[in-house]
This record gives sequence, structure tokens and C-alpha cells, in this order.
Amino acid sequence: MKYFITGGAGFIGSNLVDRLLSDGHEVVVYDNFRTGMPEFLEDAKRNYRHLKIITGDILDQKLSNSMAGCDFVFHLAANADVRHGVDDTHVDLRINTVGTHEVLEAMRVNGIKKIAFSSTGSVYGESPIIPTPEDAPFPIQTSLYGASKVAGEALIQAYCEGFGMQAWIFRFVSILGERYSHGHVFDFYKQLSQHSKYLDVLGDGTQRKSYLNVKDCVDALIIAINNSTNKVNIFNLGTNEYVQVNDSIKILCDYLTINPKINYSGGNKGWIGDNPFILLNCNKIRSLGWKPKYTIKESIIHTIEYLEENSWILDER
Amino acid sequence: MKYFITGGAGFIGSNLVDRLLSDGHEVVVYDNFRTGMPEFLEDAKRNYRHLKIITGDILDQKLSNSMAGCDFVFHLAANADVRHGVDDTHVDLRINTVGTHEVLEAMRVNGIKKIAFSSTGSVYGESPIIPTPEDAPFPIQTSLYGASKVAGEALIQAYCEGFGMQAWIFRFVSILGERYSHGHVFDFYKQLSQHSKYLDVLGDGTQRKSYLNVKDCVDALIIAINNSTNKVNIFNLGTNEYVQVNDSIKILCDYLTINPKINYSGGNKGWIGDNPFILLNCNKIRSLGWKPKYTIKESIIHTIEYLEENSWILDER
Repeated sequence: MKYFITGGAGFIGSNLVDRLLSDGHEVVVYDNFRTGMPEFLEDAKRNYRHLKIITGDILDQKLSNSMAGCDFVFHLAANADVRHGVDDTHVDLRINTVGTHEVLEAMRVNGIKKIAFSSTGSVYGESPIIPTPEDAPFPIQTSLYGASKVAGEALIQAYCEGFGMQAWIFRFVSILGERYSHGHVFDFYKQLSQHSKYLDVLGDGTQRKSYLNVKDCVDALIIAINNSTNKVNIFNLGTNEYVQVNDSIKILCDYLTINPKINYSGGNKGWIGDNPFILLNCNKIRSLGWKPKYTIKESIIHTIEYLEENSWILDER
Repeated sequence: MKYFITGGAGFIGSNLVDRLLSDGHEVVVYDNFRTGMPEFLEDAKRNYRHLKIITGDILDQKLSNSMAGCDFVFHLAANADVRHGVDDTHVDLRINTVGTHEVLEAMRVNGIKKIAFSSTGSVYGESPIIPTPEDAPFPIQTSLYGASKVAGEALIQAYCEGFGMQAWIFRFVSILGERYSHGHVFDFYKQLSQHSKYLDVLGDGTQRKSYLNVKDCVDALIIAINNSTNKVNIFNLGTNEYVQVNDSIKILCDYLTINPKINYSGGNKGWIGDNPFILLNCNKIRSLGWKPKYTIKESIIHTIEYLEENSWILDER
């Protein structure tokens, strides 16, 4: 199989690239390297011949030609910054919604029928049902990021019906692990590497979040696309655990053997549209035989170890 | 109150304009007159001083200045053609999704905090629950039209959270009545006015649809915005009845006392993404004291009478 991976130089994308190459597939990475990093593809470039890397944006005209000859598209390119939607209200719409439409159009022109899409648990807004299953009540969006992703999902579903495509849509919790380079564990680690005496925390630290290791995430993607055959296949991806932000901080500080003063910004939300409790019901993906190998605590420590060994990332962000 | 009505020269829009003016409000109509018709506003222009009509597209820069000084936006402008999404996949996204974002941005710039939005029962796709309530399971979209509307809803919800706005979102069944000028009763009547011996019908005629009279629709809009006060208020609007397409044809032919040969295109869907059974659970809007005054049969006959008296509409479409 020849896979086309938008955002293939990103955190999740590059881990997926490594896995697909090691499974013997051909891979075309398409990335604008705005948040993706060439370093994440260095091992893959060194070890595999069947890797092609194209620098391009999903909104560029070259997208369509770049996709020619591929069998399957993993559309992972996105604005993944959940917090800043209200600062520039065009960004999520342009990159995540219009960008997804451009990817679908390029697939249609090239006759490519299969797409996997990285959506988000944020599409559930503040669900009345926790853990939240895929068929939760029709949600109300609380962030422009969530809105842009639900719009991307909807476009993909309409293309499946209209043009005989097949889709796998994944609603992720936050992902941790190797090459992790944005999000709150990253922010906390970066702060503490600059000043170990205090830590600024958005919200009151009680927000409850679930996390998944990137290796477990990639395993789930592969198992899902190989074992589910509906027209539209939607999967939550996460662990059955959650931790408070305060728990993450404690794990981080214990590992670093420091005891900073915590300055909370206050309120039960870190930012507008922050969801105070995210926990997804992942029975559907588990029914295919998948389960996570790493606990949240292991994933946080795994992440810190990676950041310690790769401190250059801290300078990039 | 000063209301700004995008699509105010359209079928539903112009009926709403008449109602708001007769209730004593100021109204600004904003319409590009692509499907809206100046004739629909003639009575209003003749009878009321507090009506301003601006010719403009929601994607034009002038939108924002046009909205200055208004208190409440009814955003009804849309591509309402459900059938042709797959012929040009950009239309629904541009007009209904990006257009809604432009309306929200104009509101934000002008400090306008209240919006009512015409969504559609199509956002439920092929719901497993019929009659379908507002909190039905998270749907899978089957048309680009439905996808563009669910994206519009999501953007509005995110603006409510992000910018302290308040929204009323209405998921309509098909609307019939005075000034009705597109949809299948219109198409059937137009065909039969040209040739009374035969009628071409998309699908096999068994599609089950619910309809609502435009006067009942406008009543519901006014009752909802005056009696529900959540941040985001979502209402299905329809009757508790449904008819088969074949029933609509019989009502029409009996009224016209003709007996045409029916040529079915076949299949249980009229077009890609057509939903074979639409019936909405409208208990929520009924709990506010609203109920429809007209049966579906009365609305169909009402519509035919209007078209007979206004045959110029047939030439326009």
C-alpha cells in the first residue's frame, strides 16, 4: 500500500510514518513544516527507501498532484492549538475545515477512496455522558477548534456518501510520548526547565483529562483501518483512566525532584472552551482487540524522558 | 428591537420580515437577490417605514458596516439546494459555512450578541431514532448541505462560548406556503403546468417527509427567541405528521383534477444524500406553547393556491 500522510512530519504523523515504513509500506509525507519537524523524519529517511517527503501546505495547489498514485490518505495536518481560536477566528476554519475539503477534493480528483482523519474528543463539548461514547447526544461545540473538527468530520462523511469513499475518523484524547512538542505537559516542563521555583498553571488544576501514548495511538489507527469496514468508521481513542492537571504536575515534579510554588490562574477551565472533564468510552476500539500498553503515569514519564534527551525541541517552541 | 435579516428577501425570510414589521420592530433586510425576490418585499415596503433593504452578499465586505446598530441577527441566507452538493462541492461550504463565519465576525465587530440560525433536519443524516429529537445520537452526515449546516451550527455555538453570544438554532423540516419557490411540490406543480399528462419523480415515491407551513414556522421562531434563554437554544421545527411523496402527488393531482402518468427514477432516495424518512420530535418547541395551525395537506393546498395566483414565480425558476 502507498500511504499519503498530511502532517507526516508532526508528532503523531511521524510516529505513524515510522510504523507504516517498518510494516513494509510506501509512504508519501506532505507537510508544510510549520509545526512539523524535519528531525522527526531523520531515522525514517536513513532507514527506508520507500519514503518521499514533500514540503507543501494542504491549501496549496500542489496538493492534488502530490497525491497522485497513492492508495490511502491519513489526513493529520491541522491547527492543533486548541487554546487560541478566539484570538484569530479564521485559523481553525481555514486549516481544519477548508483544508479538509481540499484534501477530499484532491482525493476525488485522484480517485483515492480511503481516508483516515484525526479528529478530537473536543467535538463532544461538555458531554452529559462520561465516559463519552461515539454515539453520545448531538453535542454543542465550545471551541472553534472543536467546531472546525466536527465540520471536517461532516465533510468527510458527506464525501463518503456522495463519492463512494470510506473513512476512519478518530476522536483522540491528548496524546503523549516520543516527539511530543505541544500541550500542557510540554508547557510545564519547559517552564520548569527555565525556573524550577514556580509554575504558572491555567485554571485551578482540577481539570480532569485522559491521555494516550503515541505508540498506543498508532497501534489503534492501524488496527482500526485493517479491521473495520463500514462506510464511515468512528472511533474514540484514549485510556480508561484520567488524571487531574494537579496529578500531572505532581508526577512531573516528583520525577524532577523539585517542589515549585504553583500559581493558578483560577477557574475550572484553563482557557475559553477548555473542557473540565474529558474521558472517552473506548469500548468500540477495544472490541477490535486493541488496548493501551501504557498508563497515563508511564506516558507522562516517557514524555519527560524524551524531552530531557531532546532539549532542542524546547528552543523551537 | 432592530433586526438584521440575512436572506430577508427569501421564502422564509420575507415572511419573517412581514411578521417583525407588523409586531412594530425595525428591520434591515440583507439579501443578494440571487434566490430572494424583490416582489416578496413589496407589501412590506408599501406598508412600513421601518424597513431598510440592502442588496449584498454575506461574503461581501459591506456586510459588517450594514449590520451596524442592529440588536439581533436572523441568519437565513443560505444555499438551500440540498440536491446539487455533489455537482459543485464548494458551494455549500462557501455559502453556508464560511458565510456563517462572516456573519458571526460581523456581529463580533459590531458588538451584536444574539443570533437565530436556520439549520435543517438534514443534519441528523439517517437517524436511528424517529421521530428524531434535538439530542439524537451524534449524527453521520449524508449530504454536503447537511455537513455545511452542522458546521454553521458548530461555529455559532463556539462563538457563544468564546464571545458571550446567545443563539437560537432551528432545525427545519421542508417548509411550504406563501412565497414557496423551490422544492418538490414546486417542481411537481411546475411540471404539471407545462404538461398535465405525465410527471417525472425522483426516487420511487415512497420517501416519507414532514412539512411545516411557513406561517407556523415564523410563529415558532418568534415564540422561541422570546421564551428560551439558554446560551445555545436548539429547536426542531416540524409537524407531528409525515406524508409519502406519493401522497403529496395525490393531493396535488386531486386538487388540479388531473391524472398524469408517474415516471419514477427509482430507488428509495431522490438524490444522493436524500433521507428516505424525515420526522422530527418537536416536543421542545411545543413545550413553549407553540403548535402548528396547518396540516400538511392544508399546507400543500395553500402552496398550490399561492402558485396559481403567482404564476410569475414559475418563470423565474
